[in-house]
Amino acid sequence: MNNFKKISVTEEARTELHDALNLTGAEVSINTLPAATSVPFVHSHKENEEIYAVLDGEGKAEIDGENVPLKAGDWLRVSPSAKRRFFASDKTVLKYICIQVKENSLQGYTITDAVV
Amino acid sequence: MNNFKKISVTEEARTELHDALNLTGAEVSINTLPAATSVPFVHSHKENEEIYAVLDGEGKAEIDGENVPLKAGDWLRVSPSAKRRFFASDKTVLKYICIQVKENSLQGYTITDAVV
Repeated sequence: MNNFKKISVTEEARTELHDALNLTGAEVSINTLPAATSVPFVHSHKENEEIYAVLDGEGKAEIDGENVPLKAGDWLRVSPSAKRRFFASDKTVLKYICIQVKENSLQGYTITDAVV
Repeated sequence: MNNFKKISVTEEARTELHDALNLTGAEVSINTLPAATSVPFVHSHKENEEIYAVLDGEGKAEIDGENVPLKAGDWLRVSPSAKRRFFASDKTVLKYICIQVKENSLQGYTITDAVV
């Protein structure tokens, strides 16, 4: 496997990077919900923590029944067991990244993992 | 620990999310290099795979001596051992996300980890 791999992401409803980039520590998806739409199901996870970043637009997450307003620039961690569903606002898309990682898998990071 | 946590990221040179969001499977940073600047050092990692996403602007990565052009929408996986350094172009910022995860830590994901 080469030491790096790059792709350019265009405007798709959903782009998944795990296989495209040969990721081994995460799955990352880039998602765009049109205005007034939502992910059509509630889901939780067995082992994976999810990290969401809102890139564009507004909307909300419903997490364990709680409404969490979302706008561009927001970042959100969701525990594996939480039941979640995402909605775009009536007038804007909701474009967001979803990062899946195994809960408690990170050991050192930044200063403790880097070699400078 | 609550089942979710949210923050709004503003325009800082570097924002680190691990402690702000109580992440356990990744560190995520949001970085902005002004035009004609670079990260001031080359680095590699002991155990962590890095995933970079370019949010705005243009620039390049130098990875093991190879120049990799970067623009908004590009996603890049870099192996732990690769020696890397990031540069903004002369005329634009380079705004990017860096996701650190432990190499080979992901097991199931999406369909095999989700509960719907």
